[in-house]
Amino acid sequence: MMTNEIETPAVVIDEAIASQNIKAFQAYCNKHGLNLRPHIKTHKLPHFAKMQLAAGAQGITCQKIGEAEVMADAGVRDILITFNILGEAKLKRLRTLSDRLERLSVTVDSKVTIDGLGSVYDGAARPLNVLIECDTGAGRCGVQTPQQAVELAKCVARYPGLNFDGLMTYPPAGGTKAVNDFMAQTPELLKADGLDCSTVSSGGSPDMWLAHEQTAVNEYRIGTYIYNDRSLVEHGTCAWSNCAISVLATVVSTPTPGRSVIDAGSKVLTSDLPHLDGYGHVVGYPDIRVASLSEEHGVLHHNESTPFTVGERISIIPNHACVVSNMVNAVHLLAENGETNEVTVAARGLVT
Amino acid sequence: MMTNEIETPAVVIDEAIASQNIKAFQAYCNKHGLNLRPHIKTHKLPHFAKMQLAAGAQGITCQKIGEAEVMADAGVRDILITFNILGEAKLKRLRTLSDRLERLSVTVDSKVTIDGLGSVYDGAARPLNVLIECDTGAGRCGVQTPQQAVELAKCVARYPGLNFDGLMTYPPAGGTKAVNDFMAQTPELLKADGLDCSTVSSGGSPDMWLAHEQTAVNEYRIGTYIYNDRSLVEHGTCAWSNCAISVLATVVSTPTPGRSVIDAGSKVLTSDLPHLDGYGHVVGYPDIRVASLSEEHGVLHHNESTPFTVGERISIIPNHACVVSNMVNAVHLLAENGETNEVTVAARGLVT
Repeated sequence: MMTNEIETPAVVIDEAIASQNIKAFQAYCNKHGLNLRPHIKTHKLPHFAKMQLAAGAQGITCQKIGEAEVMADAGVRDILITFNILGEAKLKRLRTLSDRLERLSVTVDSKVTIDGLGSVYDGAARPLNVLIECDTGAGRCGVQTPQQAVELAKCVARYPGLNFDGLMTYPPAGGTKAVNDFMAQTPELLKADGLDCSTVSSGGSPDMWLAHEQTAVNEYRIGTYIYNDRSLVEHGTCAWSNCAISVLATVVSTPTPGRSVIDAGSKVLTSDLPHLDGYGHVVGYPDIRVASLSEEHGVLHHNESTPFTVGERISIIPNHACVVSNMVNAVHLLAENGETNEVTVAARGLVT
Repeated sequence: MMTNEIETPAVVIDEAIASQNIKAFQAYCNKHGLNLRPHIKTHKLPHFAKMQLAAGAQGITCQKIGEAEVMADAGVRDILITFNILGEAKLKRLRTLSDRLERLSVTVDSKVTIDGLGSVYDGAARPLNVLIECDTGAGRCGVQTPQQAVELAKCVARYPGLNFDGLMTYPPAGGTKAVNDFMAQTPELLKADGLDCSTVSSGGSPDMWLAHEQTAVNEYRIGTYIYNDRSLVEHGTCAWSNCAISVLATVVSTPTPGRSVIDAGSKVLTSDLPHLDGYGHVVGYPDIRVASLSEEHGVLHHNESTPFTVGERISIIPNHACVVSNMVNAVHLLAENGETNEVTVAARGLVT
């Protein structure tokens, strides 16, 4: 099917750009001696996870067990789940997942989480790798000090079914110094307790080209870089030409000279990142503002001469790629010859 | 399954409250002589559409053909799609859908849309009902003046396969006077051209209890009222006890005394309606702020003594019910005896 035959709204992924994005950051990591562990939350597709691994990634990152289960089904064998796994049902699923993988890792930031993991992995043939999550300024999960990290690492080490593997952090943009301070000091403290820190994992797309400045880190997790989006262009991380994702929409109304309405609303573009002023970048019309969204309508504001006719199709680069992938049952992969291939977003909506 | 056995995060719907909400507004419409046409976008479930029809609704409203197709599969026979249907593929689907229903209606606000409908319904056994969408202040779709509405109505009437049925508007909150002005004047003008306005349809949940003040209207469309949400409580439309929808979440981290983190982020609660200050109402903790969301984490800010323990479950009433239903593959219907029943959200994610 060619792009003009796709029913709108639709999420279109330019495969050549995505492939180029994968290769470019893998080359950067290779150059700087960083292990790359892409976060599949951006694409949620086995197709692209395999492409990332084939390019040289050492494994993948997932945020929830459900995503990891889909990737295991597709043959991925090294997965890090960057989440505190809690509760009987999830612990049971995690243990089952372990048996299907060569390497499964999780993150923890409390004794409660460690105790749960430790009890379910008691007697496991293959230990679960555990990283201590450290808060380096993002204000989400994570221990607050290197001393707290050491206490939890010691707690992990006491469980025979758990393997203390190292540290993990998800810093805010501009967090390089905080990461270096935390991640240089903690392994020294751990060493004094006889604990070895194999993995020091950081991540984040906005500062991806500065990852080498996080000198205490040996693994980098990154999601958005495969598609890129308006937030990364506005941050200066990439150019519009590096954006692989766009939302194809139809102009359904031109009610006044200053306003056009499209058939893509928050059910595709999402309400994410409103601080960017508007909900996307209209390709070819940099001055047009995606002013507001309701669920199935997007309202564009432009100057007093409508540039569109009803029925015309336009493309919008969304504010945030990852959340857009999660809205649709399928995306359309666009090949260089203009053909598109509809692919189910296999790990979409898997919140548990 | 009982609520405490459900894996989190999960969307839970209290059936008794939803049923009460359906009955209460149906009684209001009956009292005021208004036809009720609920919008299924809030629940996206045949189960509740049938409950709304059984209570006395004359038909349902959908926003996209895909939603209407699911409801037709479930046996619904009177559907209004409040959208400009454009493009060959969609027009074909619409015509096919017509043959399965007793009554199908759509809205239009341009000659381009009418011409497309007119050509595909040429020779149809059963005409398509067409309403002219009028902009009464919402600034989305719709003709701007009664005169424009008349011009389009005349255009509809020229197509043998189309039946001009009346007017439709979706006013902003507080829009009663604008609706009355537009909807009183236009039928008079139409009459002068020999056109009869059978249906005058308005809608919106925030002002639902003032619908009878829209004296020129004979049909009311409403979605959120079945579940209600934080936005309607804050608007004064309903009480917390009328909210049938909640997101069940687990506290996964208490990293500092002032902060707790839950396993529900924007992939369940969505980023919608940030002007409400925070992303939901924590049941039983009115002073706790759902301060920020990333995709799989929700960050709660509270005073300097953590009220939660890691692993504890809490419930959150979301800002906007309709968008939350769209995030999950299934919701859990909670019966009065505490049992829950997992139901697939059949019309979820149908954007075309």
